[in-house]
Amino acid sequence: MRAVALGGGHGLQASLAALRRLTDDVTAVVTVADDGGSSGRLRRELGLLPPGDLRKALAALSDSDADGRLWATVFEHRFGGSGALAGHAVGNLLMAGLLEVLGDPVEVLDRACRLLGVRGRVLPMSTVPLDMAADVVGLDSDPEAVRTIRGQVAIASTPGRVKQVRLHANGTEPPAACAEAVRAVEEADLVLLGPGSWFTSVLPHLLVPELHEALVGTSAQRVVVLNLIPQPGETAGFSPEQHLDVLSQHAPRLRVDAVLADADSVPTPDRLRAAAAGMGARTLLDTIADPGVAGRHDPQALAASLQAALERRTDQWR
Amino acid sequence: MRAVALGGGHGLQASLAALRRLTDDVTAVVTVADDGGSSGRLRRELGLLPPGDLRKALAALSDSDADGRLWATVFEHRFGGSGALAGHAVGNLLMAGLLEVLGDPVEVLDRACRLLGVRGRVLPMSTVPLDMAADVVGLDSDPEAVRTIRGQVAIASTPGRVKQVRLHANGTEPPAACAEAVRAVEEADLVLLGPGSWFTSVLPHLLVPELHEALVGTSAQRVVVLNLIPQPGETAGFSPEQHLDVLSQHAPRLRVDAVLADADSVPTPDRLRAAAAGMGARTLLDTIADPGVAGRHDPQALAASLQAALERRTDQWR
Repeated sequence: MRAVALGGGHGLQASLAALRRLTDDVTAVVTVADDGGSSGRLRRELGLLPPGDLRKALAALSDSDADGRLWATVFEHRFGGSGALAGHAVGNLLMAGLLEVLGDPVEVLDRACRLLGVRGRVLPMSTVPLDMAADVVGLDSDPEAVRTIRGQVAIASTPGRVKQVRLHANGTEPPAACAEAVRAVEEADLVLLGPGSWFTSVLPHLLVPELHEALVGTSAQRVVVLNLIPQPGETAGFSPEQHLDVLSQHAPRLRVDAVLADADSVPTPDRLRAAAAGMGARTLLDTIADPGVAGRHDPQALAASLQAALERRTDQWR
Repeated sequence: MRAVALGGGHGLQASLAALRRLTDDVTAVVTVADDGGSSGRLRRELGLLPPGDLRKALAALSDSDADGRLWATVFEHRFGGSGALAGHAVGNLLMAGLLEVLGDPVEVLDRACRLLGVRGRVLPMSTVPLDMAADVVGLDSDPEAVRTIRGQVAIASTPGRVKQVRLHANGTEPPAACAEAVRAVEEADLVLLGPGSWFTSVLPHLLVPELHEALVGTSAQRVVVLNLIPQPGETAGFSPEQHLDVLSQHAPRLRVDAVLADADSVPTPDRLRAAAAGMGARTLLDTIADPGVAGRHDPQALAASLQAALERRTDQWR
C-alpha cells in the first residue's frame, strides 16, 4: 500500500509513526512555511527551505536499527548554552549544508533518508520556502474587524480567530508544488490529512494549487485524522466539526472517505458526523489517544484504527 | 603496510593524500589544540574537541566514489554571509553534534569515517582539547627577552622567533594521549611526521608523553617530510636543517630513518644531510612539490618518493 501523509510538526510525526506500522511505502509531504526557531533562523540567515518539519518527518520514519536510531538522535539533538548555535538542531544544520551543496531539496532529502535508513520518502510540499498569511478576527474592539497576520509563528499563536489562510512564495507568487509530492499523492492508495496544527500544518497543502488538484483528483482513499484537543492560539475553542468546516471552506471540491477521531475528544458526535457526511465521509470514533501524554495520538492505536477504516469494518463505525 | 601520519591542517592532508596511494591501512593522528576559526568558536561555545583538523583528515581519506566525494564536499562546505553560522564548516557542526550525543571522540570519528567511506582511521592525539604555549624571542627591544605566547593561532602567526612549545590540558595537566593513537603508532610499519606547521601541527605530537614514547619506541620506519617553504610567522626564515634541529630539541631520543625534502627547497643540502645524520636518518632529495601550487606537495610525487625511501633505493638518495 502506497501511503502519503501530509502535514508538519508533531502531528505529522504521529501519522507517520502510525503509517509505518501498516506499510513500508510511506511518503511524507511536509509544510515549508515555518519561520520560527532553528528553522526560522536558518531561513533568514541563509535563505534556505526551513528544514525543521522535514527533519521531524525523517526522524519519525528512520530505521529502528542502531544506525537509524543514532542518526535520528543526532538529527534531533539541539545545541545548548547561550551562544550562536544554541537551539539549533544538528539535523537542521546538516540539511542546510546539503541544500547549499546539492541545491535540489528532493536530492537532499533522499540523501538524508539514506543516512537515517528511512523506508519510504520525505518530500517538501514546495521546493522553495513559503510565506503564510491569515485573516483573523477578534483582535480589535470591533469583533467583525479583519486583520491580516503574517508568518507561521504569528498565526499559530494568534489570540484572534483565524478565518482563512493564504500561502505565497516570494511575496506574491502562488506557491509551486514539488512535482514528486504531486505525483506521490496522485499515485497513492491512502492519503492522510492531519493530525496537526490545523491552519499552519494541515491546511497549507490545500493552498498549493497543484497539490490541491492532486488531492481532489487522486483515486486514493482520503482520511482526515482530527486532533485530540484544540490548539491554544490558532484553533482555541474549535470543535472537531469546525475543523472539518474550515477544511471545506479552503477546499470545497475535496471529498473525504473517512474521518477518524478519538471518541473521548468529540463532545457532539452527531454534529461531527453531519460535517463529515457533508464531505462524503463516514466517521470513525475510536480510542486513539496516548493515555500517557495529553494531546498525543498513540501510534499503535492510530494504526489499528486506520486499518479498520481502510477495511471498512462497519462494526467499528459508530 | 600499516601507515600512521601525524600532523594537522593542510600538511596532514598532503601526507594522507600520498599515503592512501601506497596502502589502504592509513591512520591519521591529528592535533587537537586549534583555537582559531570555526573550530575555535565551537571549542569556546560548546567546550568540545576542536574538529577542524580532524575534518580535514577525514576529507583527505574519504572514498573517491560519488558518495564519498559528496560527503567530503559537504563536510568541507562553509556557510557564507555574515550571520551566526558564517564561516562554520558543515562537518565541524556535524562532528560537534556527534560529540555531544556520543561523548567518545574515537566513536565519533569511526562514525564519520563510515559516512565518508574512509579506508583507514582518523584519531585525535588526545581525547580532550589541548592548549598550546610557546616561548618566543624577538618581540621586545631586548633580543634575548623571552615571552610566553598562548594559543595555536597566536603562536602560528607570531612575528617573534619560537624557541619551544608546550602543551597542556585544562590549564596545567600534562596532556593524556588517545590510547588508540598510541597503539596505532606502536603497531605501525611506517610513521610519518610532517609536512605542516612545524610548531603548531607537527611538534605537538611529541609533547604528549605517551605518544612521544610510542614514537621513540616503535619498530616502524620513521620518516620526516619537510615543508617546501618556511611558514610566515612560526617558522619565518627557518632553514630545512633548522626544522630538524627543533625536532631534536623537543625529542632528543627520537631516531629517524629518512628525511624527505624537495630538492629545489633545500638551499644547503650538506647542512640538511648533517642534521638528518644527527638523528640517524638518510636524506632523500626529490621533486615532490606541486608545480601548480606554491608550497603544496604533489601527492603522487610524494607517494613515489616515500615508496623509494621505504625500499631504500640508494640510487635515488643524494
